[in-house]
Amino acid sequence: MLNIAVIGAGRIGQVHARTIASHPGAALALIADPFGDAAEKLAAVHGARHTTDIDSVFTDGSIDAVVIGSPTPLHIPHLLAAAKAGKAVLCEKPIALDMKDVEAAREELDAVSTPVMFGFNRRFDPSFAALRAAVADGRIGDLESLLIISRDPAAPPIEYVKVSGGIFRDMTIHDFDMARFFLGDIVEVHAFGQNFDPGITQAGDFDAAVVTLRNADGVVATIINNRKCSAGYDQRLEAQGSTGTLNADNVRATTVRLSNGEATDAAEPYLDFFLQRYADAYRLELSAFINAVAEGRTPPTSIADAIEALHLAEAATESARTGRAVTL
Amino acid sequence: MLNIAVIGAGRIGQVHARTIASHPGAALALIADPFGDAAEKLAAVHGARHTTDIDSVFTDGSIDAVVIGSPTPLHIPHLLAAAKAGKAVLCEKPIALDMKDVEAAREELDAVSTPVMFGFNRRFDPSFAALRAAVADGRIGDLESLLIISRDPAAPPIEYVKVSGGIFRDMTIHDFDMARFFLGDIVEVHAFGQNFDPGITQAGDFDAAVVTLRNADGVVATIINNRKCSAGYDQRLEAQGSTGTLNADNVRATTVRLSNGEATDAAEPYLDFFLQRYADAYRLELSAFINAVAEGRTPPTSIADAIEALHLAEAATESARTGRAVTL
Amino acid sequence: MLNIAVIGAGRIGQVHARTIASHPGAALALIADPFGDAAEKLAAVHGARHTTDIDSVFTDGSIDAVVIGSPTPLHIPHLLAAAKAGKAVLCEKPIALDMKDVEAAREELDAVSTPVMFGFNRRFDPSFAALRAAVADGRIGDLESLLIISRDPAAPPIEYVKVSGGIFRDMTIHDFDMARFFLGDIVEVHAFGQNFDPGITQAGDFDAAVVTLRNADGVVATIINNRKCSAGYDQRLEAQGSTGTLNADNVRATTVRLSNGEATDAAEPYLDFFLQRYADAYRLELSAFINAVAEGRTPPTSIADAIEALHLAEAATESARTGRAVTL
Amino acid sequence: MLNIAVIGAGRIGQVHARTIASHPGAALALIADPFGDAAEKLAAVHGARHTTDIDSVFTDGSIDAVVIGSPTPLHIPHLLAAAKAGKAVLCEKPIALDMKDVEAAREELDAVSTPVMFGFNRRFDPSFAALRAAVADGRIGDLESLLIISRDPAAPPIEYVKVSGGIFRDMTIHDFDMARFFLGDIVEVHAFGQNFDPGITQAGDFDAAVVTLRNADGVVATIINNRKCSAGYDQRLEAQGSTGTLNADNVRATTVRLSNGEATDAAEPYLDFFLQRYADAYRLELSAFINAVAEGRTPPTSIADAIEALHLAEAATESARTGRAVTL
Repeated sequence: MLNIAVIGAGRIGQVHARTIASHPGAALALIADPFGDAAEKLAAVHGARHTTDIDSVFTDGSIDAVVIGSPTPLHIPHLLAAAKAGKAVLCEKPIALDMKDVEAAREELDAVSTPVMFGFNRRFDPSFAALRAAVADGRIGDLESLLIISRDPAAPPIEYVKVSGGIFRDMTIHDFDMARFFLGDIVEVHAFGQNFDPGITQAGDFDAAVVTLRNADGVVATIINNRKCSAGYDQRLEAQGSTGTLNADNVRATTVRLSNGEATDAAEPYLDFFLQRYADAYRLELSAFINAVAEGRTPPTSIADAIEALHLAEAATESARTGRAVTL
Repeated sequence: MLNIAVIGAGRIGQVHARTIASHPGAALALIADPFGDAAEKLAAVHGARHTTDIDSVFTDGSIDAVVIGSPTPLHIPHLLAAAKAGKAVLCEKPIALDMKDVEAAREELDAVSTPVMFGFNRRFDPSFAALRAAVADGRIGDLESLLIISRDPAAPPIEYVKVSGGIFRDMTIHDFDMARFFLGDIVEVHAFGQNFDPGITQAGDFDAAVVTLRNADGVVATIINNRKCSAGYDQRLEAQGSTGTLNADNVRATTVRLSNGEATDAAEPYLDFFLQRYADAYRLELSAFINAVAEGRTPPTSIADAIEALHLAEAATESARTGRAVTL
Repeated sequence: MLNIAVIGAGRIGQVHARTIASHPGAALALIADPFGDAAEKLAAVHGARHTTDIDSVFTDGSIDAVVIGSPTPLHIPHLLAAAKAGKAVLCEKPIALDMKDVEAAREELDAVSTPVMFGFNRRFDPSFAALRAAVADGRIGDLESLLIISRDPAAPPIEYVKVSGGIFRDMTIHDFDMARFFLGDIVEVHAFGQNFDPGITQAGDFDAAVVTLRNADGVVATIINNRKCSAGYDQRLEAQGSTGTLNADNVRATTVRLSNGEATDAAEPYLDFFLQRYADAYRLELSAFINAVAEGRTPPTSIADAIEALHLAEAATESARTGRAVTL
Repeated sequence: MLNIAVIGAGRIGQVHARTIASHPGAALALIADPFGDAAEKLAAVHGARHTTDIDSVFTDGSIDAVVIGSPTPLHIPHLLAAAKAGKAVLCEKPIALDMKDVEAAREELDAVSTPVMFGFNRRFDPSFAALRAAVADGRIGDLESLLIISRDPAAPPIEYVKVSGGIFRDMTIHDFDMARFFLGDIVEVHAFGQNFDPGITQAGDFDAAVVTLRNADGVVATIINNRKCSAGYDQRLEAQGSTGTLNADNVRATTVRLSNGEATDAAEPYLDFFLQRYADAYRLELSAFINAVAEGRTPPTSIADAIEALHLAEAATESARTGRAVTL
């Protein structure tokens, strides 16, 4: 039984707390959040302890593992403190917005042997994971191209956009990891930015983008991003191979369809937003972490994955500005 | 080159005329209709001759085949006159509403050797025909059950309902033939009628029905009929077999789908009404007739099919009234 | 916090135990099963107590509610003992196979005031529940007909068939409840049985059936059942109303589709079997029970629902034998 | 009645001949092909005249319009000869592979007043045309991005590839026109080429490509091309707008779907190849030509469309070589 502490009692902390509480191999031991009310409330739901003293998590000898759901700027400090204290760590993404900080963290992590995993939850989405397993099983022969359609239902507040690091670091980062999940290391990046929202334009950011990535084998991934999609949270994947094509459509809560005189076979909206759409993914990601730690296996994602995704975000930012493909 | 005359310049006559005109193995020679304007207009479109004298069709030595699209009460007189004159005949359904008339016609037809085909057009619908071919090819093993959903977009005028012979003779007749297309001869019929429309109720008819048929091998077909379906002209088929299931969905003019905040993946309405929905079926049916005649083969449907479907309509009428299954 | 005991540590007991353990308003207090190993093992997973003494459940003052997942013949004894002990009860279906036993149980239950709910889990399936809510919201106007397709992937062992009470009591029972969920009280039943499997035929049972039901408003439900469906666990629903049609398709674990030279858009198999397909339904059913008890509301299903479904099973059995519609 | 001559009795000439023969407003007067057998055979099917002397078409005073289906290098000579002779002309694409030749042809055409249309048949595909009409009707608000997936089932023979002008001129040309159909004039092009087939690589060409186009309003079109797609002739379109998304899926001959233990809801292969997939498009394109000429309207496509598509092909070729976006 793995005793786990969750740092951060916000939305994502609540999701992880619920998974831990119902996992047969783990116990939700402690919720830590500087806002005591949030920690207390979440702890009460699951019968866990709570604290406002984050540092006490790292010195608590009864804690085996820490799930970090604190704000992004605190990810690296919490991650390093936990890892150095010998705790297994699952750290939410993005690890940080600045590459220097991440590189420095990697050096420090290299010196510790505790298992550390990074939250690329979409790899654990049942449909995306099944699609990749089918590719790995040779169901479409050799992979030739990948199409990732990834659109948010609505743009975040402009104040968030300004500090987000830009669309490629903030939004496409998930898709870069998905591309790497299928293609491995990327050697060439081209990005095309679009602007519709005046506020986002003034903030110096794009609100839509098309990114094309190539790996050393010539396999190409195309990512289509929009900050705002009126059809909802549009999350699709398509892999084309030498003997067939696999795709994963959007997910809906039910299979109900309505037909009448105006339209036929009309489905309900897509699951919206990421906490609903990727609820299974978050749960399966955390289970993978718990199981890896329990069985002494290396967790399925690492700081290297976080670094590589961030590299791709930087390359895309440059490419979208210069109109040139960037070679890595 | 088969020289064909069309009797009746109404909707169905126009459909057949167009098919004949563009068929490489046939020539549209003559349009006959007591309403001279209709015949003249249709003949002009295709460069054919026209006449108001129906009898002249049968004595015209240049005519090889006759397509009968006249009103139902004239089907048998026109059919017999054409067949006795040695013309090949394609007769639209229903051949008649009264079984005695049809039985008498069969006796007369037995005495002539000219090819005579009856218009069960749905057998030629590309999806239904492909589904049946797949069943025949063993794609679902042994056929175990068939589901026919067949709903009209709106009830006909009440004056029509009164002389229609009732829902089973007028509407289900197509589905009885479809059931026979898959199951062959039927040995047991049960029908359940429904009433929603007061006018239809007063006319002594049903406006919806569920009919269950069984053949000698125990295979069951279920027919679901509605005179009025707000989702449009709903025409589906599903066959369940010992190794799988096949279904044929409704048909739409395009593959376009719309997704927005209210609904996703919404398709356009079904093709509506039968002239659109079964346009390919009418064309392929007439081609089958032309080819059978040209190649000296027996046409794919016969007066026996018309008689059997009418028998099932009578049995269903009795069953719906008595609440008892009728054995044939 | 509702303290709940589960009687029966088999498959369905395990499902309910997991739901209770992760429900914020309930605690899994006790697992009771005459097979001590099963009870102990299941209790260990969730940190609950366990016992082989079923009667001790009813006398345990710390237990607020009992979930009965024992074998069918024990349902009524356990149900009555628990209810008389003042426990809230959720009893799995079928309550019993013999109507007399159920009627007797109803009389005894009438004398106690504790909340008792019966496990018609399919009412809680997200798609079926959403479809019914859409009907209730008037999305298709007035309900005119319902189609229930309900096929098991494979027939149960012949020894089970022999004691099952027949297809209508054992399998269609769920669909009778679904029909009642939409149509309310039924006034007329017609059933058509089919036989393919020699073993089932020898056992005097059917292995497929088509049942047609009518309520007092003339709304008709058609149920299509098969003991064996090679396409998998086929569970669909379609409601036709005066302004539109709603359907709920089968459920799959992912949205992945494969296209290649042989077939396109091929989805994975349906969720199979009922513990997977109706996993959400079992969870939501139990939540509805917990919430109703916690809030002092009458649970959403009652012994009257169980009795009515059993009445329909008896009527269908008679109709299938006689070929006559049965009026209730 | 428009008297039309068809130059070229090959596959596309046969398609156009059939459409003309069955069009009520046109007569198929003459088939011209240097291979006399082909011309004679096709003429016989439709009861038309035939000739091996192409020049005689232009001097034949009974001919009102000419459809040019000769080999690409003869397009411009035939087009100019027909236009100068005062015939209306429908010229198949590509008009030519070299921009200089096309520019020269444009100058000559500017001097004549006869209607000349170019065969961008995909604009007339029912699904694509309906999707564009829905965009024009504001069904998705302002168009923000377009996705064109366009994959051939198999690469052409390597000898063809060598003289094809490259994937962008030979294959993407259709998609460039589709992008222009939705976005109008393009101001920026970026192309990413891929290589899998060694023969195509040696021929200096790509066998797959991703092209991104932007118009002056910032709307982006992404084109995904493959010379070989094992799932068949994959032709899809998706338009994303400010209030919704529209997509047009692949087209199949029937709606039949198969479900069994291995896969469910499996559809048949896509229509394959372009003569089948775009049969309706070819027919509607030619009807649009006939109707425009008959009614004295300007045909819906012009040499300017052909030139603009060729410009985009040249820009894409340059971009794919240099890795830089090309500004037009």
